[in-house]
Amino acid sequence: MSDKIFDLIIIGCGPAGLSAAINARIRNLDLLLMGSDFSSPKLYKAEKINNYLGLPEISGLELKDKFLTHLKKLEVPIQEAKVDSIYPADDHYIIMARNKTYRSYKIILAPGISTAKLIQGEEDLVGSGVSYCATCDGPLYKGKNVAVVAYNPEGIEDAKFLAEITNQVYLIPQFELEAEANLPEISVIQEKPTAINLPDNSPVVELENQQLEVDGVFIYRDTTPADKLIYGLELNDNHIKVDHKLETNFAGIYAAGDCTGTPYQVAKAVAEGQLAALNAASQIRKEKNKLS
Amino acid sequence: MSDKIFDLIIIGCGPAGLSAAINARIRNLDLLLMGSDFSSPKLYKAEKINNYLGLPEISGLELKDKFLTHLKKLEVPIQEAKVDSIYPADDHYIIMARNKTYRSYKIILAPGISTAKLIQGEEDLVGSGVSYCATCDGPLYKGKNVAVVAYNPEGIEDAKFLAEITNQVYLIPQFELEAEANLPEISVIQEKPTAINLPDNSPVVELENQQLEVDGVFIYRDTTPADKLIYGLELNDNHIKVDHKLETNFAGIYAAGDCTGTPYQVAKAVAEGQLAALNAASQIRKEKNKLS
Ligand SMILES: Cc1cc2nc3c(=O)[nH]c(=O)nc-3n(C[C@H](O)[C@H](O)[C@H](O)COP(=O)(O)OP(=O)(O)OC[C@H]3O[C@@H](n4cnc5c(N)ncnc54)[C@H](O)[C@@H]3O)c2cc1C
Ligand SMILES: Cc1cc2nc3c(=O)[nH]c(=O)nc-3n(C[C@H](O)[C@H](O)[C@H](O)COP(=O)(O)OP(=O)(O)OC[C@H]3O[C@@H](n4cnc5c(N)ncnc54)[C@H](O)[C@@H]3O)c2cc1C
Repeated sequence: MSDKIFDLIIIGCGPAGLSAAINARIRNLDLLLMGSDFSSPKLYKAEKINNYLGLPEISGLELKDKFLTHLKKLEVPIQEAKVDSIYPADDHYIIMARNKTYRSYKIILAPGISTAKLIQGEEDLVGSGVSYCATCDGPLYKGKNVAVVAYNPEGIEDAKFLAEITNQVYLIPQFELEAEANLPEISVIQEKPTAINLPDNSPVVELENQQLEVDGVFIYRDTTPADKLIYGLELNDNHIKVDHKLETNFAGIYAAGDCTGTPYQVAKAVAEGQLAALNAASQIRKEKNKLS
Repeated sequence: MSDKIFDLIIIGCGPAGLSAAINARIRNLDLLLMGSDFSSPKLYKAEKINNYLGLPEISGLELKDKFLTHLKKLEVPIQEAKVDSIYPADDHYIIMARNKTYRSYKIILAPGISTAKLIQGEEDLVGSGVSYCATCDGPLYKGKNVAVVAYNPEGIEDAKFLAEITNQVYLIPQFELEAEANLPEISVIQEKPTAINLPDNSPVVELENQQLEVDGVFIYRDTTPADKLIYGLELNDNHIKVDHKLETNFAGIYAAGDCTGTPYQVAKAVAEGQLAALNAASQIRKEKNKLS
C-alpha cells in the first residue's frame, strides 16, 4: 500500500466528478480523479443535449470531448479504475480499487445513480455474507465455499483469485462466457440468481433450478450502489444524504451529482461537483493551517 | 396595462436568468426574460473564466456570446428593461418596469448581488417615505415635495415626471449633469446624501451642507436590491431566502444565482436557474391540470 495521502480523491468521471476535478485543481489540491470510464457512459447515450447553458444542440459525445479537453488543459491526474470500497482510517480514508489501494484526506463521491437491480435479499446481507470486493473480503473466506455472481468480466477475474484461497468457488456468470475461458477448479453454473437468504448463519443462493449453500457471496456489477462503497453511508430515499455543504454523514466525504438526488441534469451535476470541491478545499486549508 | 398573463417572467440576464430561460423554453412555458442588460456586466469584466466545465480558458465576453447564441437558437423572448417593483395580484404578480407593466403567474428573481451601498437610514424607510419607482408611488405625492437621489440618468427622467405632478422636486444627482440638461421647475442640489431620517412623519434628507425636509424620497440606482423589488421578501444574511425548491416566501416567486448566496460562481448560477425553471414549470402544469 502506498503511503502517499492525497488531499482529495474524486470517484466518478461523469459531469459531477469532472467539474469537481477542475475546481479542485484550480484550488491547487493534490488530487486524483478515479473513474471506471472517462466521462459518463450516460452522456454518450444522449443524442442531443440542449439545456447546458453555452453549449446548445450538442451531442453527448461532443459534450464529453469538450469536458475531457478541459481536463487535459488543466492537467488533472486521472486513474482509470473502478473503486470497490472505502474504509475510514485514522485521519484519512483508504480507497480500494481492484488490487490497489489509495489514501486520501477527503473524498468526493460522484458515481451517478446505479440502475442495477439488486438481487432479492442482497441488501440485507451486505457485510454479513455479501461482498463486492475479493481483494477486500476474500481473506475472510480462506478454506471456505463462496459463490461469485458476475455481471461483468471483472467477476471472472476475481473468481480465479478466490479459487486460489478458498475451498470451492461457484461461478454464476450473467453473460455468455467465452468458449476458451480457462476456469479449472471453478464450478460454473449458468443460471439466474433469484434470491439470497440466510436461514442459519450461512447464505443460501437461490437459483432457477437449485440452491447453493455457501459461506460468502461475491457480486460484480459495472456500478456499485454508492452505499455499498462504504459501510454505514446514510441514504435519503435511495440518494446519498448530504448537508448544505454536500458532506455525507462521514466527515470529509462529500457527494455530488445524480447520486444526491433529482433533477438528473448535467448543470446540476456540474454545480454540485464544483461546490463539493470548493468545500473540501476550504476544509483542507483550515486543517493544514491548524497543523502548521 | 396589458391583460396578458405570462406563465413565467424571469428577472435578470446573468447566467442564472439565461439558464432559467432556456430550460423554461424547452419546457414550453409562455415566458419573458427581462434584464437591464443582456448577460451580466459582471461576466464582461472577467478576463478569464476557467472553471465552467466544457468551456476552458474563456473570457467573460466570449462566454457571454456563447450564452446569447444559445438563447437565440431557442428563440427566447427578451425584453430589455430594468424591473422596478413587483406587486402580488389575485392569482398572479404584476411587474413594473419604467412605464410598463407586465403580469405573470410565476417569477424567477435572478438579479445577482447588488453591491450598491445604501444611504444610512434608507433601509428603515422603504414603504414609509423611501421609494424606488415614480410610476408606482409618484401619485401618492401629488401636490407635495419630494427629493430624488439619482445615481443614474433614469433618476433624471423620473424627476421630470415627478415635477409634473408634485409641488416641488429636489434633484440630488450623484454624477455630473450634462450642461444642456433641461430641468425647469426642479431644484438641483449637487451634494452627497449622508442619511435619511424621519424625526416626525416627514423624511429629512441630510446632505453635506444642508437638510431637506420633504414628503418622499425617490432613489435611483442601476441595481435595486432584490428585497426592495417586492415588499416583504425575506432575506437570510443579505441573500434572498429560498427553500430547497428555490421558492421564496412568496408562493410562485423563485430566486436563483448569486442572489441566493455563495459560492458566487457561473456553474452555481446556471444550475439554480435551471432548477428554479423546472420547479416553476412543474408547478404551472399542476395548476393548469387542476383547472382543466
Ligand atoms: C439518454 C440520456 C439523455 C440525457 N439527456 C440529458 C440532457 O439533455 N440534459 C441534461 O442536463 N442531462 C441529461 N441526462 C442526464 C445526465 O446525463 C446526468 O444527469 C449526468 O450525467 C449526471 O452526472 P454525474 O456525474 O452525477 O453521474 P454520471 O454521469 O452517471 O457519472 C458517474 C460516473 O461514475 C462512474 N462510477 C460509478 N461508480 C463508480 C465506482 N465505484 N468507481 C469508479 N467510477 C464509478 C460511472 O461509471 C460514471 O462514469 C441524460 C441522461 C441519459 C441517460
Ligand atoms: C471580475 C469577475 C470575475 C469573475 N470570475 C468568475 C470565474 O472565473 N468563474 C465563475 O464561476 N464566476 C466568476 N465570477 C462570478 C460570476 O460572474 C457570477 O457568479 C455570476 O455572474 C452570477 O450570475 P447571476 O445570474 O446570479 O448574477 P449576475 O451575473 O450578477 O446577473 C444579474 C443580472 O441581472 C440584472 N438585474 C439586476 N437587477 C435587475 C432588475 N431589477 N431588473 C432587470 N435586471 C436586473 C443585472 O444587471 C445583471 O445583468 C466573476 C465575477 C466578477 C465580477
